[in-house]
Amino acid sequence: MNTPLVQKVLEGNIRATAQLIRKIDDGDREVLDDLSVLYKHSGRAHIIGVTGSPGVGKSTLVDRLVSQFREEDKKVGILAIDPTSPFTGGAILGDRIRMQKHFLDEGVFIRSMATRGKFGGLTRSTADAIIVLDAMGKDVIIVETVGVGQDEIDIAHSAHTTVLVTIPGMGDDIQAIKAGLMEIGDIFVVNKADREGAGKTVRELKFMLQMSSERLEAAGWDPPVIETVASLNQGIEQVHEAILRHRDHLLQPGHDQLKKREEVRVRNQLLDLLKENLIETALERIGGVAGLNGFVREIVEREKDPYGVSSELLEKLMKGPSS
Amino acid sequence: MNTPLVQKVLEGNIRATAQLIRKIDDGDREVLDDLSVLYKHSGRAHIIGVTGSPGVGKSTLVDRLVSQFREEDKKVGILAIDPTSPFTGGAILGDRIRMQKHFLDEGVFIRSMATRGKFGGLTRSTADAIIVLDAMGKDVIIVETVGVGQDEIDIAHSAHTTVLVTIPGMGDDIQAIKAGLMEIGDIFVVNKADREGAGKTVRELKFMLQMSSERLEAAGWDPPVIETVASLNQGIEQVHEAILRHRDHLLQPGHDQLKKREEVRVRNQLLDLLKENLIETALERIGGVAGLNGFVREIVEREKDPYGVSSELLEKLMKGPSS
Repeated sequence: MNTPLVQKVLEGNIRATAQLIRKIDDGDREVLDDLSVLYKHSGRAHIIGVTGSPGVGKSTLVDRLVSQFREEDKKVGILAIDPTSPFTGGAILGDRIRMQKHFLDEGVFIRSMATRGKFGGLTRSTADAIIVLDAMGKDVIIVETVGVGQDEIDIAHSAHTTVLVTIPGMGDDIQAIKAGLMEIGDIFVVNKADREGAGKTVRELKFMLQMSSERLEAAGWDPPVIETVASLNQGIEQVHEAILRHRDHLLQPGHDQLKKREEVRVRNQLLDLLKENLIETALERIGGVAGLNGFVREIVEREKDPYGVSSELLEKLMKGPSS
Repeated sequence: MNTPLVQKVLEGNIRATAQLIRKIDDGDREVLDDLSVLYKHSGRAHIIGVTGSPGVGKSTLVDRLVSQFREEDKKVGILAIDPTSPFTGGAILGDRIRMQKHFLDEGVFIRSMATRGKFGGLTRSTADAIIVLDAMGKDVIIVETVGVGQDEIDIAHSAHTTVLVTIPGMGDDIQAIKAGLMEIGDIFVVNKADREGAGKTVRELKFMLQMSSERLEAAGWDPPVIETVASLNQGIEQVHEAILRHRDHLLQPGHDQLKKREEVRVRNQLLDLLKENLIETALERIGGVAGLNGFVREIVEREKDPYGVSSELLEKLMKGPSS
């Protein structure tokens, strides 16, 4: 039951892939059937998350890493996640000049995800795009996220290997963030390591990693802390090597780490999908946006309250067999 | 039908308020009835969002602003939103030494929100906590968010007045973020303005604001760009004055700006609540986490796919009257 578009994606057609991902980013519901078919052809790619605060040089690092993977003749897909774009109407990260050298390389597919669906999140559309790139035959999929919010943490949970990037001397607040993201990082990179304070940042990271020993014992993986100067191509090989080593670790027989990560990923994706489907059906039943706005007005006027309205609607909507 | 806890919150009792907000942060479902009652007593406070990247000095700025509001004898509630905390198990921003001088002031209530509910987001629990502080009699509620992700944008949408804080010279990526957040800022602050490049940052911000002229005409508000050195208490009065002026603007008769913002806020809150209620009921019906995990395993094994399972479950769950 493959549609022509799905067939083309499975053959690795770039134009068809771009078209499908655009539909996902637009929140087009018709793609769900296509995704359903593509899903069965996914599961081979290594999904790598690269995250960190703005200004740490993630794009340059990703660019250099891509060159490494291309040397091994691996096909690479890159998803640049830009949660702020919906407000500017364009994908700022989309036209990234730094990526230009890979632009004409047929083995590299670069796309930035910006729009959130009406009721689904960026996490949802990213998960869908990963499946498309996986099914089209990419060996490596790099998901680059800007910032340190919950979106980034959620997206990191959908990666097999998460690379956390920081730079020397980002101030107090960065310490807090480091602590918060500590548990999702598999590989830590201190970029711009030619700046003052790089050694101190590395020591701090190592210390913090030692403190979360529980994590280490559970996973059997000792996250490396690597100094890089991505703009000068320094330290990139070490990061590349660490990524491959982490993949081997995940695939170790008996460990089943990869499967565990897949389970987390699938659980999140399924819950996101269900939420979106449920709320859309619910809205249809109450008369769409007009129906919703009726309730909103009553709540603003304090005639009703959001908690009461929500449970009232729930009762009305779910008339299935009660447990 | 007020419970003793609700009664105490309405009387402005600090301990009861702290207890209720803790329950919200814990995702305790029992609070929904309490919130339902409190909601009708809310709607008086001025909700101010303060957001910006890590390290720009938001906490110091908020601290200084609180002093200004206290001089006017206004009661202040502060919610510090820390999306990274769930991973460390504690609220890093919670023990902020900088806030200590207000700690013993009965007119100031400070709480940090960290945990996300199982299926609801930080945005949801923040909206609930705002209602509690509003109902307990706070005149001003300051919601401080770290980072620049979607959570921050969502939370900004729930404020009446949004203050965007930046500092001189944050690099290229910050330019992108500025553009993304431009449309949600009512007041722009360039903190640490004694640093080199402050004038340039102010000019850039003003230029970008002029470019989004559509926005200005629609709202009838010209967002000021204010230089501050929060640590030296410089420029704080101007920020305070701009906040009051923005509130007056929102309240201008004929404009109904405040009501429009309230409608956006209520709509988001209602949708969040509905989503959470729907997914919880759905999970109950499919046998809880165990039932869910059965599907997850089949999907990981590629026997099923998430899109198919989701629509299958939807059909089973929503047996109400079809439209």
